[in-house]
Amino acid sequence: MAATAGQVIVCKAAVAWEAGKPLVLEDVEVAPPQKMEVRIKILYTSLCHTDVYFWEAKGQNPVFPRILGHEAGGIVESVGEGVTDLAPGDHVLPVFTGECKECAHCKSEESNMCDLLRINTDRGVMLHDAKSRFSISGKPIYHFLGTSTFSEYTVIHVGCVAKINPLAPLDKVCIMSCGFCTGFGATVNVAKPKRGSSVAIFGLGAVGLAAAEGARVSGASRIIGVDINPSRFEQAKKFGVTEFVNPKDHKKPVQEVIAEITNGGVDRSVECTGNVDAMISAFECVHDGWGVAVLVGVPHKEAVFKTHPVNFLNERTLKGTFFGNFKPLSDLPGVVEKYMNKELELEKFITHEVPFSEINKAFDYMLKGESLRCIIRME
Amino acid sequence: MAATAGQVIVCKAAVAWEAGKPLVLEDVEVAPPQKMEVRIKILYTSLCHTDVYFWEAKGQNPVFPRILGHEAGGIVESVGEGVTDLAPGDHVLPVFTGECKECAHCKSEESNMCDLLRINTDRGVMLHDAKSRFSISGKPIYHFLGTSTFSEYTVIHVGCVAKINPLAPLDKVCIMSCGFCTGFGATVNVAKPKRGSSVAIFGLGAVGLAAAEGARVSGASRIIGVDINPSRFEQAKKFGVTEFVNPKDHKKPVQEVIAEITNGGVDRSVECTGNVDAMISAFECVHDGWGVAVLVGVPHKEAVFKTHPVNFLNERTLKGTFFGNFKPLSDLPGVVEKYMNKELELEKFITHEVPFSEINKAFDYMLKGESLRCIIRME
Repeated sequence: MAATAGQVIVCKAAVAWEAGKPLVLEDVEVAPPQKMEVRIKILYTSLCHTDVYFWEAKGQNPVFPRILGHEAGGIVESVGEGVTDLAPGDHVLPVFTGECKECAHCKSEESNMCDLLRINTDRGVMLHDAKSRFSISGKPIYHFLGTSTFSEYTVIHVGCVAKINPLAPLDKVCIMSCGFCTGFGATVNVAKPKRGSSVAIFGLGAVGLAAAEGARVSGASRIIGVDINPSRFEQAKKFGVTEFVNPKDHKKPVQEVIAEITNGGVDRSVECTGNVDAMISAFECVHDGWGVAVLVGVPHKEAVFKTHPVNFLNERTLKGTFFGNFKPLSDLPGVVEKYMNKELELEKFITHEVPFSEINKAFDYMLKGESLRCIIRME
Repeated sequence: MAATAGQVIVCKAAVAWEAGKPLVLEDVEVAPPQKMEVRIKILYTSLCHTDVYFWEAKGQNPVFPRILGHEAGGIVESVGEGVTDLAPGDHVLPVFTGECKECAHCKSEESNMCDLLRINTDRGVMLHDAKSRFSISGKPIYHFLGTSTFSEYTVIHVGCVAKINPLAPLDKVCIMSCGFCTGFGATVNVAKPKRGSSVAIFGLGAVGLAAAEGARVSGASRIIGVDINPSRFEQAKKFGVTEFVNPKDHKKPVQEVIAEITNGGVDRSVECTGNVDAMISAFECVHDGWGVAVLVGVPHKEAVFKTHPVNFLNERTLKGTFFGNFKPLSDLPGVVEKYMNKELELEKFITHEVPFSEINKAFDYMLKGESLRCIIRME
């Protein structure tokens, strides 16, 4: 039992005081974990587009002041009432979505969209008492995605904390807690390409490259990267992408270009941009008879997916996925083991690293499109 | 070897001389089968909506004079050059789509959309020589769907003829050659409901009721029939349909009605109307996390399927199917065996029966909405 158990911990956290303004490192009070909560010492966190999206708060409900961050690795400091699955000292990955193990979704083999702990981007407080565990001089600072990992200590519902192999390097596997698994799972759990098949990946950011890593691990023989930014193509080769298509280089729709170079369409496609036109292309570029397209990218609220229904009747399948269909608590330990067994490559995703005091640099790298993942060292 | 082998056979056929006009029983010359073709003595045929659709020829390419018909059972009379899989005397079901066993689709476990023998509604001649095998006084009469079963004898590509158990009653299993398998396969091969699950069926015609039969056989505990014609509800109970929703009885969209009565949505849905609004409802009424919707009904050429992409991202799946994903030659014999083993009920689909001379009555029954299937006895 840590000496801090049951006590308020004062530590550094990067607070987003208002939309779009640099985060400020503040001394924050972190309350002890309550019922079914754990307090975690974060060792490494990384920046994901979703953090930037809610920091910019364009078209979102602004919830400030807030502690962002949801990709991270840490060690349990103390646990609240009723927590039996985790103990101080456990190595863990916080996850922005959870697993209550009681609801219809958790009991279904097919779903990971837990009724209780499903992602909620608007909520800034804990489920147990609708209060924040963060404060500065007694004034609450809001949580983000139930994780708020841009803090030396954070409090998270036990259902959103995956216990992993303590030998796993947290400065690497931290990226599995969101981006990597989202893309990788979309391919291996949902698209499920067969050995020797062709896969198109729309969007060659970190999630798309994780989807490509899934295709590589699955033994796909052709991995076609689609992106309007040609500078991403060179990097993508490291991720097993074998060919590139830039929609801007063609007058005809990209689905027709892909159908031409693949004798009728790819076997599988994975859409990681969130652009609705890319979604339509990703669906229409799969081969009739057996093609499966998987949507990963989050669309604009007003977006409408449109296609001729005959595209479905010709035996194409369209599926969407959330967090790569991984059940966070049940499945993440196994994904970490795959990395430990050298079946997965994570290092190539990590392009930058900064100390916590320079967290705003991570935002700059991402906004400039320079980084895939920037690891933020807390100590 | 039949005495007629290699000879022209003159027999009765029901000829559609022009769109929408009653068929006329004519003496037709049926040429011997050519390379990879078989000539079949039809014993029973049944009327399907697709026959009526192309007979009405509204918005279709009119191809007349033509011999319609594609649901049937018969016996091989003679075979052409190269045919080794069938012999005179074999009991067979003609199928409107085929299986060449050589193309990428036939070699794929997932597809039944054979490149060579896929349905072609415009072609009125044989593949081998682009000629018709039917004539009257030497003038060609066109084929339909490669089957033209409204004739005492017909010539069909061997890849469109499924050899079945000779003990199977052809006056029953003939309906498996199109309508039954289309609906039944959509459920058992594509939607794949689990035992105890809920299934919504859109459209309670013969195909929809065959889809319901698939849900019954799969052990679904709730089978919700959706139709705007309330007179179909009583009949549907015989097919295992447990509840009914008439969209016209509700002000809100039917997908919302279904979500309310099923605690968030059905596990599976099967759309058998071809109406694009019903397709959208069928997709949006499945449960997030695991719901699968399957499109069967053929839409209008201009139809556009529209939905918010978040409906996919919440882990719903939309698939289309053609002929219930059955590979006609490989799979139909097994479906016939299921009937022989009393696992399937076909009798309830057969509401009418007429002799060949009264084939136009079968059209009347269907146009009035009175029949599910009307069997036409050739002798």
